[in-house]
Amino acid sequence: MSPDESMTSPAEGRRRFRDGLVTPTAGWSAGYAQANLIAVPRDYAFDLMLFAQRNPKPCPVLDVLEAGQYAGPLLVDGDIRTDIPAYRIYVDGEPVTETTDATEYWTDDLVAFLIGCSFSFEAALLDSGISLRHIEEDVNVPMYRTDRPCRSAGRISGPLVVSMRPLPPEQVADAVRITSRYPSVHGAPVHVGDPAGLGIADLSAPDYGDPVSIRPGEIPVFWACGVTPQAAVMQSRPPLAIGHAPGHMLITDLRDSELVVP
Amino acid sequence: MSPDESMTSPAEGRRRFRDGLVTPTAGWSAGYAQANLIAVPRDYAFDLMLFAQRNPKPCPVLDVLEAGQYAGPLLVDGDIRTDIPAYRIYVDGEPVTETTDATEYWTDDLVAFLIGCSFSFEAALLDSGISLRHIEEDVNVPMYRTDRPCRSAGRISGPLVVSMRPLPPEQVADAVRITSRYPSVHGAPVHVGDPAGLGIADLSAPDYGDPVSIRPGEIPVFWACGVTPQAAVMQSRPPLAIGHAPGHMLITDLRDSELVVP
Repeated sequence: MSPDESMTSPAEGRRRFRDGLVTPTAGWSAGYAQANLIAVPRDYAFDLMLFAQRNPKPCPVLDVLEAGQYAGPLLVDGDIRTDIPAYRIYVDGEPVTETTDATEYWTDDLVAFLIGCSFSFEAALLDSGISLRHIEEDVNVPMYRTDRPCRSAGRISGPLVVSMRPLPPEQVADAVRITSRYPSVHGAPVHVGDPAGLGIADLSAPDYGDPVSIRPGEIPVFWACGVTPQAAVMQSRPPLAIGHAPGHMLITDLRDSELVVP
Repeated sequence: MSPDESMTSPAEGRRRFRDGLVTPTAGWSAGYAQANLIAVPRDYAFDLMLFAQRNPKPCPVLDVLEAGQYAGPLLVDGDIRTDIPAYRIYVDGEPVTETTDATEYWTDDLVAFLIGCSFSFEAALLDSGISLRHIEEDVNVPMYRTDRPCRSAGRISGPLVVSMRPLPPEQVADAVRITSRYPSVHGAPVHVGDPAGLGIADLSAPDYGDPVSIRPGEIPVFWACGVTPQAAVMQSRPPLAIGHAPGHMLITDLRDSELVVP
C-alpha cells in the first residue's frame, strides 16, 4: 500500500483491478468501505439471505445485486464480475480455481451479496492509536474457521469464521468500544482471549490469510469475518458460487462514515 | 387493555388468540416485543427479504419462518397460522378476507416474515413521560400510505407506510432520541411535521388504524411502519400473501430490552 493507493478513488481502484492489477486491497481508497463478495444461484439466494439475517455479525449485508445485475449503488458504473482483484470459484462447494476476471464463470442466474468488511473499522482503530499487527507486518489479517456453527437457513449452514488481532490488555476495551460502533462491518468482537474456546488449536496456522506475531502479554481478539459465507458455501455445496479471494475486496462507493452508529 | 393483559405471558396470550379471542394487542404482555406478519410463497421470499434489507426502517426483520415451519425462537411452542388475533388474506394482491385462523389458507410453501413493531418503543416513550394520543384515546395508531416509494427488489415494490403520533414541540427531540435506540423496531422518525411532504392530504383519514385528535401547536411525527410490506403485497400482487390485521400483532417471546442498542 502506498499513499497513492490510499488516495485512489473507488472507481479508479475498480478500474485498475478490472484492467488486471492483482493486489490485496487493505489501505486502498481511504475512507471508503470495502466489501466481501459471495454470489450464488438465484435458487439459493433466499437461503443465503436468511443465513445472513440470522448471522448478522459475520454476514452484515451491505447490498445485493439481483440476478443479471452487475452494477449498483455500491459500485456505480462498475462490474462485479471484473472489478475485484481476485476471485475464488466454487463448484459443488469445492474451490476449483482463482481468477482475476470472473466473467467466464458468471451466469445471469447469480445473485451477488456484498458483505461488510472489517477494513472499515480498522481505520477507526488506527485513528485511535491502536496499532494492528497485520498492518505493521504488511500481511493479510489471519482468519480461522471456528468450531462454532452459525445458525443455519434452508440448505445453507457452516461454521463461524473469525479474524484475529492481538492487542495489549490496556487496549482491548477501547477496541471493543470503537468497533461496536460499526455493526454493519462485524461490530464488536465475538470472543476475547483463549483461542481454544473457539476450537482454534494453533494461532500460527490460520485457515485464511497470514499468521502474525503475538507479543508476550497480548490478548488475541476475535471478530466475526466476512469469509464466513465462503465457508458456508464449502459446507453447503451449491452447484456454483463465486467469492473474492480473501483480502482482495471490492472497493465500494460507500463511505466508512456512513457505517458508524451514534 | 387491562392490567391482566399486560401481565399475560406471550405463550398465554398466543394461546388465547389461538382459542379465538379477537382484540388489538397494544399493551399485552408488557416488556415483550410484538411483530408484524407477512407471509408469501417461497418463490417470492428472496424478493421480499431483499425488499426488507433495502428498506430496513419500515421492514426490520426479527426472524423468518421457513416454508413448512410454524413455530420458532420468537414463538416457542406456537403456531403462526393461529396465534395472531386476526389475519388478512391477499390473493393476487387483493385483500379477500379477514380471519381469526389462517390455517385453511396457509400452504406449506409460505415463508413467514416477522417484522418489528413500534409497540416496543412506545413502552419506552411512555416510561419517559411522553404520552401517546392513540393510547390516551384507546384506539389503533393512525397509519398512512405515503407518496414515497420504497427501494424495490425484484418483483416487490410499494410505498412507504408510516404511523403518526402527535407530540408537543418540547417532546419531539426526546422522542427522536429514545426511538433511535430501537433500530429493529423502526427506529427514529422518518419525518417530523408537514404531512404534505409525505403526500398525506388529510391526517383525519388514515389508510389503516384510527384517526386521533391533534391539539393546537402539536407536531405530527411520522415513523416507518410494519404495514409497509402489506402495501407492497397489494402493489406487487403475489398469488397469495397472509398478513396480520393492523394492530392485531403476534406477541413474541423476545424481550423489548433485547432490541435496545447502547
